Amino acid sequence: MDYITFPEGFTAAGVACGIKKEGPDLAVVLCERIANAAGIFTKNRVKGHSLRLSMKNIAAGRARLAVINAGNANACMGSRGDEDALEFARIAAERFGCSPEHVLTASTGVIGFPLPLEKIRRGLETAVPSREGGLDAARAIMTTDTVPKQARAEAVVGGKTVRIGGMAKGSGMIHPDMATMISVITTDALISPAALKSALVSAAGKSFNRISVDGETSVCDCVMILASGMASDKEITEDSPDFSAFLCALTDVCVSLSRMLAADGEGATKLLTIKVNGARTRKDARLICGAVARSPLCKTAAFGCDANWGRILTAAGYSGAVFDPEKVDIYIGAVQVCRAGGGLDFDEEAALNELRQKEVVYTIELNEANESDVMWTCDFSPEYVNINANYRT
Amino acid sequence: MDYITFPEGFTAAGVACGIKKEGPDLAVVLCERIANAAGIFTKNRVKGHSLRLSMKNIAAGRARLAVINAGNANACMGSRGDEDALEFARIAAERFGCSPEHVLTASTGVIGFPLPLEKIRRGLETAVPSREGGLDAARAIMTTDTVPKQARAEAVVGGKTVRIGGMAKGSGMIHPDMATMISVITTDALISPAALKSALVSAAGKSFNRISVDGETSVCDCVMILASGMASDKEITEDSPDFSAFLCALTDVCVSLSRMLAADGEGATKLLTIKVNGARTRKDARLICGAVARSPLCKTAAFGCDANWGRILTAAGYSGAVFDPEKVDIYIGAVQVCRAGGGLDFDEEAALNELRQKEVVYTIELNEANESDVMWTCDFSPEYVNINANYRT
Repeated sequence: MDYITFPEGFTAAGVACGIKKEGPDLAVVLCERIANAAGIFTKNRVKGHSLRLSMKNIAAGRARLAVINAGNANACMGSRGDEDALEFARIAAERFGCSPEHVLTASTGVIGFPLPLEKIRRGLETAVPSREGGLDAARAIMTTDTVPKQARAEAVVGGKTVRIGGMAKGSGMIHPDMATMISVITTDALISPAALKSALVSAAGKSFNRISVDGETSVCDCVMILASGMASDKEITEDSPDFSAFLCALTDVCVSLSRMLAADGEGATKLLTIKVNGARTRKDARLICGAVARSPLCKTAAFGCDANWGRILTAAGYSGAVFDPEKVDIYIGAVQVCRAGGGLDFDEEAALNELRQKEVVYTIELNEANESDVMWTCDFSPEYVNINANYRT
Repeated sequence: MDYITFPEGFTAAGVACGIKKEGPDLAVVLCERIANAAGIFTKNRVKGHSLRLSMKNIAAGRARLAVINAGNANACMGSRGDEDALEFARIAAERFGCSPEHVLTASTGVIGFPLPLEKIRRGLETAVPSREGGLDAARAIMTTDTVPKQARAEAVVGGKTVRIGGMAKGSGMIHPDMATMISVITTDALISPAALKSALVSAAGKSFNRISVDGETSVCDCVMILASGMASDKEITEDSPDFSAFLCALTDVCVSLSRMLAADGEGATKLLTIKVNGARTRKDARLICGAVARSPLCKTAAFGCDANWGRILTAAGYSGAVFDPEKVDIYIGAVQVCRAGGGLDFDEEAALNELRQKEVVYTIELNEANESDVMWTCDFSPEYVNINANYRT
């Protein structure tokens, strides 16, 4: 099934150019015409050079080509890094016959080493974007990911079906607003750059900004969307009646990718969904979701299938949210493990069975008012440490 | 050598009463007269019942006895937990002949199980506080700690030598303002409750609130100090010329205990000292220290002896501090690994040698102005996960 090439007008490729020790490491997503484009970029004060070039190029709301390499972040290299990003874009533009300012560049991998431009140049020569190349591209942006992440959706806009396709990579350094993630999304909707940016920000607020793997955020994180406009003839703006249908489909794609990112977090054995209900304010719900999703103790307990609700309540307690601990109910899956802030004589076997699933839902009912929030994360295993103890060398 | 019983007027004991599967789990620190007392307690919204009783009893600035059990946190038990804490204090008061309102109680261990008061009552009967009992007491408050933590110092106040002794336990859920730590400090200085509280808050700001093991904080964290007044005859107040000498010695004790707590963090193989210099504001320095000390990626790299300065710079970048990344220099021990925000062709062997030490210092020079901060943490090993995956069961 096609994802990133599902919308009309897009082709893709993924090749091995030798930056990583093995496997594909260079992805191309090409639009046959100049697409409208929008992006969201890391809030880290340190920003990768390839990312900075994309921020600059996407500002005009137009792009044709996204090129992404894995294995080298092109970050913390001073002026050389900026020059290398420009050269990366120039080589790619020349290879695929577009203007360098319509190229979006992204790099992910180790920090502080020069981008191997000669490998990239040779790699791009062998890359032949096609309608069938989406999976190759999704594979080529992976670093410590164990599976490629792709999602798609359709929406009916002005009586016509438009398509949205996306791919993403994780999988460490994941936290709201940043994360070592790169995602490219395509659509054939005709939509103004402003509406595209607005839709992307809104969808990311419910998806990419609701996941946490380890509380870390990187210098290379970005989500970029390109809209070919080939499936519709009336431009969607933020005021269009169909904007919400497009937004809904885009949010679906982003949530699907986000859940895949969390489930494939470094060392993860399961997806954890953290739900907070009954909060006084949305902010309180968000603070508790964030504290639990970030808590190494809640996450190691999930790995060990330990129904340790005391740690969940403790994380809520230090989150900064306002609530009465003696009103809190906690559920692991369908099993209530805490009532009114205290322990229950719950069925340990039933709780263990919930914790053994590939997806575990923690529900924290504050019983204060009606605000809620949800976040996705993963459990925390010794493998996370093994993956990260010797990453650079 | 004596620590908690180093100051005049204090005896201590530690016994095994059977709350933990093995080892001592009940500590007593007794003052022969009513001591002036002060404490600092967790900021977690969820507070353990034994801790809440201590907060109430210490409010008057007087105490004679601290009793601490390990293995059960007496937390999240509703009104029963409060009643159990009262009974814990009542039993201890009766055993050692003091008034229940002069008893400070602390409990650490699993959350959500009733305090085994009968075991505690029998344990207290066997506890015989003595001048030699300090080490037993320090051992009896340990949970996942691998070594007891004790420190001592002297100060000259009004021409007389006063002594300060302390013990502490960690070792997970450690983070500024809270931490699953319990510490009891004694002194024979004659010092007003207000001055004692002021000195403790100041010393903790430079010690217990500058350590992080995993960003977690618990519901049972507290530091309590008792002053027998037996070594001096003129009361120290905050305005006394000798207050600073006392504060200095107290800070020494607290910093020593804090470094021990960080070094013995769950699964730790080394102590990490994070220094930030040259910041525009103290807050900026503090934010960067906190982000690096909390970063799983910086800490797993330390475990793997990987001189991954990119992760240090990245954590600084998302800390919220204001600085120019292109001015940053980073050192691992004496080896400079990053200059002006970029990589250096540093001696990997020398960096590896620094990272293999039991104590590793990361120095981040921002080159912006003159503010600085320091924090202590530890590396992050697979053993942290192993310890915490099945803690409750």
